[in-house]
Amino acid sequence: MNAQSSPGPLLSGLRVLEIGHFVAAPFCTRLLGDLGADIIKVEPRAGDPARQWGAMLDGRSLWWSMHGRNKRCVTIDLKSAKGRDLVLALVAECDVLVENFRPGQLERLGLGPEILRKACPGLIVAHISGYGQDGPGADRAAFGVIGEAIGGLRHLTNHPPGTFELPPVRVGISIGDSIAGLYAAFGVMAALWQRDRVKGDAIARTIDVALTESVLSMMEGMLPEYGALGAIKQPTGGGIATAAPSNAYPTADRQWVLIAANSEPLFARLMTLIGRPELIGAPGYASNPERVANAARLDTLIGEWSRRYDAEVLTTLLDENDIPNSKAYTASDCAADPQYLARGMVREVPDKHFGTVLQAGMVPHVPESPGTVRWTGPDIGEHNHEVLIELLGLDPPAIEALEREGVI
Amino acid sequence: MNAQSSPGPLLSGLRVLEIGHFVAAPFCTRLLGDLGADIIKVEPRAGDPARQWGAMLDGRSLWWSMHGRNKRCVTIDLKSAKGRDLVLALVAECDVLVENFRPGQLERLGLGPEILRKACPGLIVAHISGYGQDGPGADRAAFGVIGEAIGGLRHLTNHPPGTFELPPVRVGISIGDSIAGLYAAFGVMAALWQRDRVKGDAIARTIDVALTESVLSMMEGMLPEYGALGAIKQPTGGGIATAAPSNAYPTADRQWVLIAANSEPLFARLMTLIGRPELIGAPGYASNPERVANAARLDTLIGEWSRRYDAEVLTTLLDENDIPNSKAYTASDCAADPQYLARGMVREVPDKHFGTVLQAGMVPHVPESPGTVRWTGPDIGEHNHEVLIELLGLDPPAIEALEREGVI
Repeated sequence: MNAQSSPGPLLSGLRVLEIGHFVAAPFCTRLLGDLGADIIKVEPRAGDPARQWGAMLDGRSLWWSMHGRNKRCVTIDLKSAKGRDLVLALVAECDVLVENFRPGQLERLGLGPEILRKACPGLIVAHISGYGQDGPGADRAAFGVIGEAIGGLRHLTNHPPGTFELPPVRVGISIGDSIAGLYAAFGVMAALWQRDRVKGDAIARTIDVALTESVLSMMEGMLPEYGALGAIKQPTGGGIATAAPSNAYPTADRQWVLIAANSEPLFARLMTLIGRPELIGAPGYASNPERVANAARLDTLIGEWSRRYDAEVLTTLLDENDIPNSKAYTASDCAADPQYLARGMVREVPDKHFGTVLQAGMVPHVPESPGTVRWTGPDIGEHNHEVLIELLGLDPPAIEALEREGVI
Repeated sequence: MNAQSSPGPLLSGLRVLEIGHFVAAPFCTRLLGDLGADIIKVEPRAGDPARQWGAMLDGRSLWWSMHGRNKRCVTIDLKSAKGRDLVLALVAECDVLVENFRPGQLERLGLGPEILRKACPGLIVAHISGYGQDGPGADRAAFGVIGEAIGGLRHLTNHPPGTFELPPVRVGISIGDSIAGLYAAFGVMAALWQRDRVKGDAIARTIDVALTESVLSMMEGMLPEYGALGAIKQPTGGGIATAAPSNAYPTADRQWVLIAANSEPLFARLMTLIGRPELIGAPGYASNPERVANAARLDTLIGEWSRRYDAEVLTTLLDENDIPNSKAYTASDCAADPQYLARGMVREVPDKHFGTVLQAGMVPHVPESPGTVRWTGPDIGEHNHEVLIELLGLDPPAIEALEREGVI
């Protein structure tokens, strides 16, 4: 026990090689890097395509400033023999490899597990893929929206059956990829703990994360209820199948305000506020199950009231009456939220191209050794020299020769 | 290096005390337990309310069979002095405490961090809450749907602005709680690794996970793009803002099929299949940016074609033409999926009340030491005797006295 010393970042001493692209593997390593791990990101000389994603400023992706933060970026042509040797030499200096090629691609590049572990006997290898590393469907092309559908999520992001004809919505972000990346970060740390702890087993484990499975693992009672009762979990629009009133309600200024008033005291306060106190304890409204049966009628009543007010007025009224509520936050609401600002969850960080850039903070918050944004998303190959000198002991002429040959 | 031996479960040797309820903390410990940790779940004598959630069979929640699996369940009245002493005695035998009370509640019960760490100097304490442990908004009541709205998610689960008047949809599951629980599991393992590794620092760290922040951390370029450009990320319905065609399309039998055909060869194959080959390379359709600008018209064309076929026929046609697609899987589709079944991600497990129950498997898959369902959700207090005898050395008469006094 050494609680008096000032510890470094939580994951200091950990080094991770990322051979990733798009969202899942880079998000995994962002999380590890946010907590202090040294991330070496290997890219082709054209760069990770994610560097071009989202809105740009001066030809640079703003998303990349977060997605690539805290990483050291090196370029390596994996198809060249010298490039492959460089990767193996880097692997020898790392604890973990995170990749999200299609299953088998790493082996086809001459970087299969035996070769990797010959270079680094204790290497934890994390594979993130659409459907997993084995099984009859492992080779299908992985698209996030399709993986989320196979995970059961897309069926649920809809209004109740029969309500209307528009398609179920995408969640608006690459949620399946991100959840898969987070599962991989969890699995990596679990494998490292068992490998490295004082009574550890020194075993080089494989973390095999599928996007589809990551989503399915969150589906709560869906499978047990189907298996036992044949019940098919159905979408419920803005509401919840088991609690009422709880929904998003419209405002005069065309925003949406969430109101959760499904306990007895909250329901009583809300009915008083909207001018319908006669419903408190009335037949059909006297308990949560009764209210769930009448949820559509309640939502209509509450919506007729809520749309008289602008969102700011409405949330103030609800706050004054101690009824849980919130606007459906947009980017501007998130950026101005006092709680986020107080906890550093929304922060301006220095960026050499943009001056400063607005970013989300680190999760989880670890007060004894908080995560940091040490730097924002680097340029392609920005750390070629630094990494090859520091980790592999190459000298500048040797690095320049590799550059000329197109290896890096 | 000891790769020849047969390792135990990945997290064998780890013991976690859960004082949790509802979703977030119990989901965190489910993940740890799935990988082999010994989870001691402390409940009031009435049990975690989640035991009553979802569809029931013979008075028992089917969801609970998964949510409570692999845990040892003990009842303790935390408001009694003897109960508090029991918790501290259990803490002394654990590596980690995971809790999701409102911030400060544990301290009010006499279980603040100093007292906990006096009982167990190296204890990792993971708090999961709506808004975090500190800051001006920490005390607000935490509701999942409100936390997701504050995280920026609910604004996005909608059709594009102006499309219609129905509210943005809930994702259909407690996604914010689950993501927060997964972040906590990641943070716990990160803190344990640094504490316990051979060159570790033995520091007892705190993992402070907020539901709102867990969601916000996944919002990709939302904050940087707002900060630099004032751009407010908007919902895009079933589509993607940056790729077309990619959407959910209707079928004759009123299902939805996802089609992702936003590369040049995929677009060409899809247009040929739907009988519109003249659009391949035509002005307005010759590149992804052009197609994004015409996404609504493309979706209409594809939808007119797709609704001629039942989902099974449609997905077969698309498969034959190598175009990525999938039904929006329901519970029954997930249960029958060959890839899930081959990887054990959908499995029947024995249950003493139900006979067998259908459950999701473990994520991540760790081939060297796969997770297991050792048992399904236990009854209230099922492990009172086992845990108090094994961990605290109590004898049966002492345990029975605690039961009579209402302490356990």
